[in-house]
Amino acid sequence: MITPGQPTPGSTRSLGQLVAELNRLPGVGPKSAQRIAYHIAQIPAEEARGLAEAIIAVKDVLLFCAECRNLTDASPCDICANPQRNRDQICVVEDPRDLVALERTRAYRGLYHVLHGVLSPLNGVGPEDIHLPQLFARLDGASDPLQEVIIATNPTLEGDATADFIQRRLSGSGVTITHLARGLPVGGTLEFADDTTLTRALSGRSPLE
Amino acid sequence: MITPGQPTPGSTRSLGQLVAELNRLPGVGPKSAQRIAYHIAQIPAEEARGLAEAIIAVKDVLLFCAECRNLTDASPCDICANPQRNRDQICVVEDPRDLVALERTRAYRGLYHVLHGVLSPLNGVGPEDIHLPQLFARLDGASDPLQEVIIATNPTLEGDATADFIQRRLSGSGVTITHLARGLPVGGTLEFADDTTLTRALSGRSPLE
Repeated sequence: MITPGQPTPGSTRSLGQLVAELNRLPGVGPKSAQRIAYHIAQIPAEEARGLAEAIIAVKDVLLFCAECRNLTDASPCDICANPQRNRDQICVVEDPRDLVALERTRAYRGLYHVLHGVLSPLNGVGPEDIHLPQLFARLDGASDPLQEVIIATNPTLEGDATADFIQRRLSGSGVTITHLARGLPVGGTLEFADDTTLTRALSGRSPLE
Repeated sequence: MITPGQPTPGSTRSLGQLVAELNRLPGVGPKSAQRIAYHIAQIPAEEARGLAEAIIAVKDVLLFCAECRNLTDASPCDICANPQRNRDQICVVEDPRDLVALERTRAYRGLYHVLHGVLSPLNGVGPEDIHLPQLFARLDGASDPLQEVIIATNPTLEGDATADFIQRRLSGSGVTITHLARGLPVGGTLEFADDTTLTRALSGRSPLE
Protein backbone atom coordinates (compact mmCIF):
# COMPACT_ATOMS: atom_id res chain seq x y z
CA MET A 1 0.00 0.00 0.00
CA ILE A 2 1.22 3.50 -0.78
CA THR A 3 1.57 5.34 2.52
CA PRO A 4 0.54 8.95 1.86
CA GLY A 5 3.47 11.34 2.07
CA GLN A 6 6.51 9.10 2.39
CA PRO A 7 7.85 7.60 -0.85
CA THR A 8 6.90 3.98 -1.47
CA PRO A 9 9.26 1.57 -3.25
CA GLY A 10 7.78 0.75 -6.65
CA SER A 11 5.55 3.81 -6.63
CA THR A 12 6.26 7.35 -7.84
CA ARG A 13 6.33 10.86 -6.43
CA SER A 14 3.34 12.00 -8.49
CA LEU A 15 1.23 9.00 -7.44
CA GLY A 16 2.31 9.40 -3.81
CA GLN A 17 1.24 13.04 -3.96
CA LEU A 18 -2.18 12.15 -5.41
CA VAL A 19 -2.69 9.42 -2.81
CA ALA A 20 -1.87 11.93 -0.07
CA GLU A 21 -4.40 14.42 -1.47
CA LEU A 22 -7.14 11.81 -1.93
CA ASN A 23 -6.48 10.44 1.54
CA ARG A 24 -7.58 13.80 3.00
CA LEU A 25 -11.09 13.40 1.60
CA PRO A 26 -13.81 12.17 4.00
CA GLY A 27 -14.29 8.41 3.94
CA VAL A 28 -11.24 7.83 1.74
CA GLY A 29 -8.68 5.74 3.62
CA PRO A 30 -5.12 5.06 2.44
CA LYS A 31 -6.17 1.89 0.62
CA SER A 32 -9.03 3.44 -1.34
CA ALA A 33 -6.89 6.53 -1.97
CA GLN A 34 -4.32 4.23 -3.58
CA ARG A 35 -7.00 2.39 -5.53
CA ILE A 36 -8.45 5.66 -6.84
CA ALA A 37 -5.00 7.09 -7.63
CA TYR A 38 -4.07 4.07 -9.78
CA HIS A 39 -7.49 4.24 -11.41
CA ILE A 40 -6.90 7.89 -12.31
CA ALA A 41 -3.44 6.97 -13.59
CA GLN A 42 -5.07 4.60 -16.06
CA ILE A 43 -8.19 6.45 -17.27
CA PRO A 44 -8.04 8.66 -20.39
CA ALA A 45 -6.45 12.05 -19.73
CA GLU A 46 -9.63 13.96 -20.64
CA GLU A 47 -11.60 11.97 -18.05
CA ALA A 48 -9.10 12.91 -15.35
CA ARG A 49 -9.08 16.50 -16.56
CA GLY A 50 -12.90 16.48 -16.29
CA LEU A 51 -12.65 15.52 -12.64
CA ALA A 52 -9.96 18.11 -11.93
CA GLU A 53 -11.98 20.84 -13.65
CA ALA A 54 -15.15 19.87 -11.78
CA ILE A 55 -13.23 20.33 -8.52
CA ILE A 56 -11.91 23.75 -9.56
CA ALA A 57 -15.33 24.79 -10.92
CA VAL A 58 -17.00 24.07 -7.61
CA LYS A 59 -14.52 26.32 -5.81
CA ASP A 60 -14.76 29.05 -8.44
CA VAL A 61 -18.52 29.05 -8.90
CA LEU A 62 -20.09 28.13 -5.57
CA LEU A 63 -21.22 30.87 -3.22
CA PHE A 64 -23.70 31.28 -0.37
CA CYS A 65 -27.23 32.29 -1.33
CA ALA A 66 -27.62 35.81 0.10
CA GLU A 67 -31.02 34.81 1.50
CA CYS A 68 -30.91 31.19 2.69
CA ARG A 69 -27.10 30.67 2.84
CA ASN A 70 -27.41 27.45 0.83
CA LEU A 71 -24.54 26.73 -1.55
CA THR A 72 -25.49 27.96 -5.00
CA ASP A 73 -23.98 28.83 -8.38
CA ALA A 74 -25.96 32.09 -8.44
CA SER A 75 -27.57 34.11 -5.65
CA PRO A 76 -30.45 34.08 -4.87
CA CYS A 77 -30.63 30.29 -5.24
CA ASP A 78 -33.32 28.51 -7.27
CA ILE A 79 -35.43 27.90 -4.18
CA CYS A 80 -35.32 31.48 -2.88
CA ALA A 81 -35.96 32.76 -6.41
CA ASN A 82 -38.87 30.37 -6.98
CA PRO A 83 -42.23 32.25 -6.77
CA GLN A 84 -43.99 28.90 -6.22
CA ARG A 85 -42.45 28.46 -2.74
CA ASN A 86 -44.33 29.62 0.35
CA ARG A 87 -42.40 32.62 1.62
CA ASP A 88 -44.05 32.47 5.05
CA GLN A 89 -42.30 29.22 6.04
CA ILE A 90 -38.58 28.88 6.78
CA CYS A 91 -36.99 25.50 7.53
CA VAL A 92 -33.66 25.77 9.39
CA VAL A 93 -31.14 23.01 8.61
CA GLU A 94 -27.56 22.38 9.71
CA ASP A 95 -26.09 21.42 6.37
CA PRO A 96 -26.81 21.77 2.63
CA ARG A 97 -27.15 17.98 2.45
CA ASP A 98 -30.02 18.14 4.95
CA LEU A 99 -31.75 20.60 2.60
CA VAL A 100 -31.24 18.25 -0.34
CA ALA A 101 -32.67 15.38 1.72
CA LEU A 102 -35.77 17.40 2.60
CA GLU A 103 -36.20 18.55 -1.02
CA ARG A 104 -36.09 14.94 -2.09
CA THR A 105 -39.26 14.25 -0.11
CA ARG A 106 -41.11 16.91 -2.17
CA ALA A 107 -43.16 17.32 1.05
CA TYR A 108 -42.02 20.87 1.83
CA ARG A 109 -42.74 23.91 -0.31
CA GLY A 110 -41.40 26.68 1.91
CA LEU A 111 -38.00 28.36 2.11
CA TYR A 112 -34.85 27.25 3.98
CA HIS A 113 -32.04 28.62 6.05
CA VAL A 114 -28.74 26.71 6.13
CA LEU A 115 -26.65 27.20 9.28
CA HIS A 116 -23.53 25.37 8.05
CA GLY A 117 -22.94 23.97 11.51
CA VAL A 118 -24.39 23.70 15.00
CA LEU A 119 -23.69 25.47 18.27
CA SER A 120 -20.94 23.57 20.05
CA PRO A 121 -19.48 25.46 23.03
CA LEU A 122 -17.05 22.61 23.69
CA ASN A 123 -15.57 23.10 20.22
CA GLY A 124 -15.77 26.86 20.54
CA VAL A 125 -18.55 27.19 17.98
CA GLY A 126 -20.81 30.09 18.96
CA PRO A 127 -23.76 31.79 17.23
CA GLU A 128 -21.40 34.04 15.26
CA ASP A 129 -19.51 31.04 13.86
CA ILE A 130 -22.51 29.58 12.05
CA HIS A 131 -25.02 31.44 9.88
CA LEU A 132 -27.32 32.30 12.81
CA PRO A 133 -26.97 36.11 12.70
CA GLN A 134 -28.06 35.95 9.04
CA LEU A 135 -31.10 33.91 10.11
CA PHE A 136 -32.17 36.39 12.75
CA ALA A 137 -31.51 39.39 10.48
CA ARG A 138 -33.62 37.64 7.87
CA LEU A 139 -36.49 36.94 10.28
CA ASP A 140 -36.45 40.45 11.70
CA GLY A 141 -36.32 42.06 8.27
CA ALA A 142 -38.79 39.68 6.63
CA SER A 143 -40.93 41.62 4.17
CA ASP A 144 -43.66 38.97 3.97
CA PRO A 145 -45.25 38.14 7.36
CA LEU A 146 -43.59 34.91 8.54
CA GLN A 147 -45.94 32.16 9.75
CA GLU A 148 -43.68 29.31 10.76
CA VAL A 149 -40.06 28.46 11.46
CA ILE A 150 -39.43 24.71 11.24
CA ILE A 151 -36.25 23.83 13.12
CA ALA A 152 -34.82 20.77 11.35
CA THR A 153 -31.49 20.44 13.15
CA ASN A 154 -30.30 16.87 13.75
CA PRO A 155 -31.74 15.06 16.78
CA THR A 156 -28.37 15.26 18.56
CA LEU A 157 -27.25 17.03 21.72
CA GLU A 158 -25.77 19.90 19.72
CA GLY A 159 -28.63 19.95 17.22
CA ASP A 160 -31.14 20.21 20.05
CA ALA A 161 -29.09 22.90 21.80
CA THR A 162 -29.06 24.91 18.58
CA ALA A 163 -32.82 24.42 18.24
CA ASP A 164 -33.36 25.64 21.82
CA PHE A 165 -31.16 28.68 21.16
CA ILE A 166 -33.17 29.64 18.06
CA GLN A 167 -36.47 29.03 19.88
CA ARG A 168 -35.47 31.22 22.83
CA ARG A 169 -34.35 33.97 20.46
CA LEU A 170 -37.64 33.87 18.54
CA SER A 171 -40.01 33.40 21.48
CA GLY A 172 -42.54 36.24 21.66
CA SER A 173 -42.01 37.14 18.01
CA GLY A 174 -45.41 35.61 17.26
CA VAL A 175 -43.97 33.14 14.79
CA THR A 176 -44.94 29.49 15.19
CA ILE A 177 -41.81 27.46 15.94
CA THR A 178 -41.90 23.73 15.22
CA HIS A 179 -39.38 20.93 14.97
CA LEU A 180 -39.41 17.64 13.08
CA ALA A 181 -41.21 14.75 14.78
CA ARG A 182 -39.14 12.26 16.77
CA GLY A 183 -40.17 8.63 16.74
CA LEU A 184 -39.62 5.24 15.22
CA PRO A 185 -37.94 5.37 11.81
CA VAL A 186 -40.29 3.91 9.20
CA GLY A 187 -39.25 0.31 8.67
CA GLY A 188 -37.54 0.31 12.05
CA THR A 189 -38.46 -2.06 14.89
CA LEU A 190 -39.28 -1.35 18.54
CA GLU A 191 -36.87 -4.09 19.51
CA PHE A 192 -33.86 -2.19 18.18
CA ALA A 193 -35.04 1.36 18.88
CA ASP A 194 -33.03 3.12 21.62
CA ASP A 195 -34.88 4.16 24.79
CA THR A 196 -34.89 7.86 23.98
CA THR A 197 -36.39 7.30 20.55
CA LEU A 198 -38.99 4.95 22.03
CA THR A 199 -39.85 7.46 24.75
CA ARG A 200 -40.28 10.19 22.12
CA ALA A 201 -42.37 7.83 19.99
CA LEU A 202 -44.64 7.20 22.99
CA SER A 203 -45.01 10.80 24.09
CA GLY A 204 -45.56 11.85 20.49
CA ARG A 205 -48.15 9.13 19.77
CA SER A 206 -51.05 10.19 17.54
CA PRO A 207 -54.59 8.76 17.03
CA LEU A 208 -55.03 6.34 14.14
CA GLU A 209 -57.25 7.83 11.44
CA MET B 1 -28.84 12.52 -2.08
CA ILE B 2 -27.60 14.13 -5.27
CA THR B 3 -28.20 11.76 -8.14
CA PRO B 4 -25.23 12.10 -10.49
CA GLY B 5 -26.17 13.68 -13.80
CA GLN B 6 -29.74 14.78 -13.32
CA PRO B 7 -30.24 18.08 -11.48
CA THR B 8 -31.26 17.74 -7.83
CA PRO B 9 -33.57 20.27 -6.17
CA GLY B 10 -31.61 22.28 -3.64
CA SER B 11 -28.29 21.39 -5.26
CA THR B 12 -26.37 23.16 -8.03
CA ARG B 13 -25.09 22.38 -11.50
CA SER B 14 -21.45 22.63 -10.44
CA LEU B 15 -21.96 20.33 -7.43
CA GLY B 16 -23.99 17.89 -9.52
CA GLN B 17 -21.20 17.80 -12.07
CA LEU B 18 -18.57 17.11 -9.40
CA VAL B 19 -20.72 14.38 -7.83
CA ALA B 20 -21.09 12.77 -11.26
CA GLU B 21 -17.32 12.85 -11.81
CA LEU B 22 -16.51 11.50 -8.32
CA ASN B 23 -19.15 8.80 -8.71
CA ARG B 24 -17.12 7.35 -11.60
CA LEU B 25 -14.19 6.59 -9.30
CA PRO B 26 -13.82 3.01 -8.01
CA GLY B 27 -15.45 2.41 -4.64
CA VAL B 28 -17.11 5.84 -4.63
CA GLY B 29 -20.89 5.42 -4.62
CA PRO B 30 -23.41 8.24 -5.08
CA LYS B 31 -23.59 8.88 -1.33
CA SER B 32 -19.85 9.18 -0.75
CA ALA B 33 -19.51 11.15 -3.99
CA GLN B 34 -21.99 13.64 -2.56
CA ARG B 35 -20.20 13.67 0.80
CA ILE B 36 -16.85 14.32 -0.87
CA ALA B 37 -18.31 16.97 -3.20
CA TYR B 38 -19.74 18.97 -0.29
CA HIS B 39 -16.47 18.53 1.56
CA ILE B 40 -14.58 19.97 -1.40
CA ALA B 41 -17.11 22.80 -1.60
CA GLN B 42 -16.20 23.77 1.95
CA ILE B 43 -12.41 23.30 2.12
CA PRO B 44 -10.04 26.21 1.34
CA ALA B 45 -9.64 26.85 -2.40
CA GLU B 46 -5.90 26.10 -2.33
CA GLU B 47 -6.57 22.67 -0.80
CA ALA B 48 -9.00 21.83 -3.59
CA ARG B 49 -6.57 23.22 -6.17
CA GLY B 50 -3.89 20.95 -4.69
CA LEU B 51 -6.09 17.92 -5.30
CA ALA B 52 -6.96 19.02 -8.84
CA GLU B 53 -3.30 19.65 -9.66
CA ALA B 54 -2.25 16.27 -8.24
CA ILE B 55 -4.76 14.63 -10.59
CA ILE B 56 -3.47 16.54 -13.61
CA ALA B 57 0.15 15.95 -12.60
CA VAL B 58 -0.37 12.19 -12.53
CA LYS B 59 -1.73 12.27 -16.08
CA ASP B 60 0.98 14.62 -17.32
CA VAL B 61 3.93 12.95 -15.62
CA LEU B 62 3.21 9.23 -15.45
CA LEU B 63 4.51 6.94 -18.18
CA PHE B 64 5.32 3.25 -18.58
CA CYS B 65 8.88 2.21 -17.72
CA ALA B 66 10.38 1.15 -21.07
CA GLU B 67 11.78 -1.98 -19.41
CA CYS B 68 9.29 -3.26 -16.81
CA ARG B 69 6.16 -1.33 -17.91
CA ASN B 70 5.55 -0.17 -14.34
CA LEU B 71 4.07 3.31 -13.98
CA THR B 72 6.88 5.78 -13.38
CA ASP B 73 7.65 9.50 -13.47
CA ALA B 74 10.84 8.78 -15.44
CA SER B 75 11.91 5.79 -17.57
CA PRO B 76 13.69 3.55 -16.69
CA CYS B 77 11.99 3.38 -13.27
CA ASP B 78 13.91 3.41 -9.99
CA ILE B 79 13.82 -0.38 -9.77
CA CYS B 80 15.08 -1.05 -13.32
CA ALA B 81 17.74 1.66 -12.88
CA ASN B 82 18.89 0.29 -9.52
CA PRO B 83 22.25 -1.54 -9.88
CA GLN B 84 21.56 -3.31 -6.56
CA ARG B 85 18.71 -5.37 -8.05
CA ASN B 86 19.36 -8.85 -9.40
CA ARG B 87 18.98 -8.54 -13.16
CA ASP B 88 18.66 -12.31 -13.61
CA GLN B 89 15.25 -12.49 -11.90
CA ILE B 90 12.02 -11.10 -13.34
CA CYS B 91 8.75 -11.18 -11.38
CA VAL B 92 5.65 -10.88 -13.57
CA VAL B 93 2.67 -9.11 -11.94
CA GLU B 94 -0.77 -8.13 -13.20
CA ASP B 95 -0.93 -4.65 -11.75
CA PRO B 96 1.37 -1.90 -10.41
CA ARG B 97 -0.30 -2.33 -7.01
CA ASP B 98 0.86 -5.95 -6.92
CA LEU B 99 4.41 -4.70 -7.48
CA VAL B 100 4.05 -2.23 -4.63
CA ALA B 101 2.72 -5.02 -2.38
CA LEU B 102 5.72 -7.24 -3.20
CA GLU B 103 8.17 -4.37 -2.69
CA ARG B 104 6.66 -3.76 0.72
CA THR B 105 7.82 -7.22 1.82
CA ARG B 106 11.45 -6.27 1.04
CA ALA B 107 11.79 -10.01 0.32
CA TYR B 108 12.45 -9.68 -3.43
CA ARG B 109 15.48 -7.97 -4.94
CA GLY B 110 15.02 -8.82 -8.62
CA LEU B 111 13.29 -6.95 -11.43
CA TYR B 112 9.60 -6.88 -12.39
CA HIS B 113 7.35 -6.90 -15.40
CA VAL B 114 3.89 -5.36 -15.10
CA LEU B 115 1.25 -6.79 -17.48
CA HIS B 116 -1.49 -4.23 -16.71
CA GLY B 117 -4.14 -6.93 -17.02
CA VAL B 118 -4.68 -10.65 -17.49
CA LEU B 119 -5.64 -12.79 -20.45
CA SER B 120 -9.45 -12.97 -20.55
CA PRO B 121 -10.82 -14.43 -23.79
CA LEU B 122 -14.39 -13.94 -22.55
CA ASN B 123 -13.74 -10.21 -22.29
CA GLY B 124 -11.76 -10.20 -25.53
CA VAL B 125 -8.44 -9.57 -23.79
CA GLY B 126 -5.67 -11.32 -25.73
CA PRO B 127 -1.85 -11.35 -25.37
CA GLU B 128 -1.58 -8.18 -27.49
CA ASP B 129 -3.95 -6.30 -25.19
CA ILE B 130 -1.72 -6.58 -22.12
CA HIS B 131 2.03 -5.97 -21.93
CA LEU B 132 2.93 -9.58 -22.82
CA PRO B 133 4.73 -8.90 -26.14
CA GLN B 134 7.01 -6.47 -24.25
CA LEU B 135 7.69 -9.23 -21.71
CA PHE B 136 8.67 -11.76 -24.36
CA ALA B 137 10.73 -9.22 -26.32
CA ARG B 138 12.48 -8.39 -23.07
CA LEU B 139 13.19 -12.03 -22.23
CA ASP B 140 14.37 -12.84 -25.74
CA GLY B 141 16.61 -9.76 -25.90
CA ALA B 142 17.85 -10.01 -22.33
CA SER B 143 21.54 -8.98 -22.27
CA ASP B 144 22.22 -10.57 -18.88
CA PRO B 145 21.52 -14.34 -18.77
CA LEU B 146 18.11 -14.70 -17.13
CA GLN B 147 17.89 -17.27 -14.32
CA GLU B 148 14.29 -17.14 -13.14
CA VAL B 149 10.89 -15.83 -14.11
CA ILE B 150 8.56 -15.68 -11.09
CA ILE B 151 4.96 -15.57 -12.29
CA ALA B 152 3.05 -13.63 -9.61
CA THR B 153 -0.35 -13.33 -11.28
CA ASN B 154 -3.33 -13.55 -8.93
CA PRO B 155 -4.52 -17.04 -7.93
CA THR B 156 -7.65 -16.64 -10.04
CA LEU B 157 -8.91 -18.46 -13.12
CA GLU B 158 -7.65 -15.71 -15.42
CA GLY B 159 -4.45 -15.19 -13.44
CA ASP B 160 -3.66 -18.90 -13.70
CA ALA B 161 -4.53 -18.96 -17.42
CA THR B 162 -2.13 -16.07 -17.98
CA ALA B 163 0.56 -17.90 -15.98
CA ASP B 164 0.07 -21.02 -18.09
CA PHE B 165 0.31 -18.98 -21.28
CA ILE B 166 3.61 -17.43 -20.20
CA GLN B 167 4.95 -20.79 -19.05
CA ARG B 168 4.11 -22.47 -22.39
CA ARG B 169 5.73 -19.61 -24.27
CA LEU B 170 8.94 -19.83 -22.19
CA SER B 171 9.17 -23.62 -21.92
CA GLY B 172 12.44 -24.84 -23.40
CA SER B 173 14.10 -21.43 -23.05
CA GLY B 174 16.11 -22.87 -20.17
CA VAL B 175 14.80 -20.26 -17.73
CA THR B 176 13.44 -21.51 -14.40
CA ILE B 177 9.76 -20.61 -14.20
CA THR B 178 8.18 -20.43 -10.73
CA HIS B 179 4.97 -19.13 -9.25
CA LEU B 180 4.09 -17.92 -5.77
CA ALA B 181 3.19 -20.59 -3.22
CA ARG B 182 -0.47 -21.33 -2.63
CA GLY B 183 -1.54 -22.21 0.89
CA LEU B 184 -3.09 -20.98 4.09
CA PRO B 185 -2.79 -17.21 4.57
CA VAL B 186 -0.69 -16.49 7.66
CA GLY B 187 -3.09 -15.82 10.51
CA GLY B 188 -5.81 -17.71 8.63
CA THR B 189 -7.55 -20.79 9.99
CA LEU B 190 -8.12 -24.19 8.40
CA GLU B 191 -11.74 -23.97 9.46
CA PHE B 192 -12.43 -21.06 7.15
CA ALA B 193 -10.02 -21.91 4.33
CA ASP B 194 -11.78 -22.90 1.09
CA ASP B 195 -11.21 -26.44 -0.22
CA THR B 196 -8.94 -25.41 -3.09
CA THR B 197 -6.65 -23.44 -0.80
CA LEU B 198 -6.59 -26.29 1.68
CA THR B 199 -5.79 -28.80 -1.10
CA ARG B 200 -2.95 -26.56 -2.33
CA ALA B 201 -1.71 -26.17 1.25
CA LEU B 202 -1.61 -29.95 1.61
CA SER B 203 0.05 -30.72 -1.71
CA GLY B 204 2.54 -27.93 -1.09
CA ARG B 205 3.36 -29.00 2.47
CA SER B 206 7.00 -28.63 3.49
CA PRO B 207 9.10 -30.27 6.26
CA LEU B 208 9.42 -28.38 9.53
CA GLU B 209 13.00 -27.27 10.09
